[in-house]
Amino acid sequence: MKSALRSFKLTLAYDGAAYGGWQIQKNSPTIQAAVEDALGRIIGRPVRVTAAGRTDAGVHALGQVAGFKGETRMTADEFQASLTALLPDDIQVVHCREVDDGFHAQYQAERKCYRYHIWHGARAPLFARRHIWAVRRIPDPDVLERGLRRLVGRHDFAAFRSTGSQAETSIRNMYRADVEIRGRLLTFSFEADGFLRHMVRALVGTLVAPEGPAMMDSIIKSRDRSQAGRTAPPQGLFLAWVAYPGQDGPKSAPGPFTGFE
Amino acid sequence: MKSALRSFKLTLAYDGAAYGGWQIQKNSPTIQAAVEDALGRIIGRPVRVTAAGRTDAGVHALGQVAGFKGETRMTADEFQASLTALLPDDIQVVHCREVDDGFHAQYQAERKCYRYHIWHGARAPLFARRHIWAVRRIPDPDVLERGLRRLVGRHDFAAFRSTGSQAETSIRNMYRADVEIRGRLLTFSFEADGFLRHMVRALVGTLVAPEGPAMMDSIIKSRDRSQAGRTAPPQGLFLAWVAYPGQDGPKSAPGPFTGFE
Repeated sequence: MKSALRSFKLTLAYDGAAYGGWQIQKNSPTIQAAVEDALGRIIGRPVRVTAAGRTDAGVHALGQVAGFKGETRMTADEFQASLTALLPDDIQVVHCREVDDGFHAQYQAERKCYRYHIWHGARAPLFARRHIWAVRRIPDPDVLERGLRRLVGRHDFAAFRSTGSQAETSIRNMYRADVEIRGRLLTFSFEADGFLRHMVRALVGTLVAPEGPAMMDSIIKSRDRSQAGRTAPPQGLFLAWVAYPGQDGPKSAPGPFTGFE
Repeated sequence: MKSALRSFKLTLAYDGAAYGGWQIQKNSPTIQAAVEDALGRIIGRPVRVTAAGRTDAGVHALGQVAGFKGETRMTADEFQASLTALLPDDIQVVHCREVDDGFHAQYQAERKCYRYHIWHGARAPLFARRHIWAVRRIPDPDVLERGLRRLVGRHDFAAFRSTGSQAETSIRNMYRADVEIRGRLLTFSFEADGFLRHMVRALVGTLVAPEGPAMMDSIIKSRDRSQAGRTAPPQGLFLAWVAYPGQDGPKSAPGPFTGFE
């Protein structure tokens, strides 16, 4: 009898504050471990889950994508409901659907969007403190935007790669890099075919440094991490969405507090 | 030489998620203990702090008021800065000012406002889950508003008092009871000269019960807790502000996510 190994694609949102990141590790709870544990309980045997990208400790997701294979008679909707019931309340299943055998969440990801929230002020708003970075001084919006425009296109982003990065090449295509400013809240959006380790946080740290935006061209050219700014802290960073071949990213994706304003 | 015992009034905002409520207790961290500990370190001897009202475990505050006396040469602003530096990041000092010797945060509180956030849906938004109660079904806005109107005025609120309440009388003057609905978010506001233990949560639990709002008159009249609805969970509740003689409550007070939308 043919084994009924089926492939599923999960879209996950999570609050990363309590986790040591996506990837399983020994001494810290991780998103991957929580999802694999819940899936294993549903399916009745160990399940391996692969994510589009490994978010770091404290980083959040609105639309992380993860794939897994399992033998089950449940529909995708039933899976979503069961998973939702078993997962802790800081991990949510946004979608679950059955996909072709060949689906690979990481290798087939074509485009990703990260967002970073900055609060312009001495202290982050109390109830959003785990989802925002408070910065006392920021460059003028014009200066910020000029710096952001330099990032768009095909570049070698070696200057924004952390030493632990294992990627073979540091060349990436940046499709979009902009900032929306509403009052004291700055929302940066970066859309690319891939990101290096800590790249978004290094970009943000550089953009808010006094001379950062104006120096962007020469920083990129240097390919030298020490030329760029500090790595912004993880709590302001959100993996917003991941797009696969034949898909566009959403025109407007909900923010962490959409509807709760 | 005259002792320089001075009186201060603190306005505090806090995220109650990690605390067993305001009041010091043995087996759980409390807001009072955190504030007294920080003040004691600044002043150099034990300090007792009195709050306008004791919020329960998991309940938040945007404008709790607390008073203390201490011998210090610091200005109120210096006190605020020192306290801010010493307190954990889920407790913030909104204001600190020096007041008359006779100030008593609890006995002199003339009017308080509590807010309660409900999300109309199966699941609360991920990043606001500790600050909102998700409710699948809610009564029609008209029905809710009729129920709320019944609460305004001088009433015996014994039907909404939890058994542990120690107040001498259950008669209170309710100055305002309304709801603002924006999309799936409902924000209830209750303004009164005082509240009984769990009263706001019992009011909210009754208002969202299918027959609750229509039965409000007879529930009040019954003075029987078993006639009212369930006690809504703590995480949706915020102590918004406290007013003292000669003060009005603020016309519009910021919500937990004001500015972060």
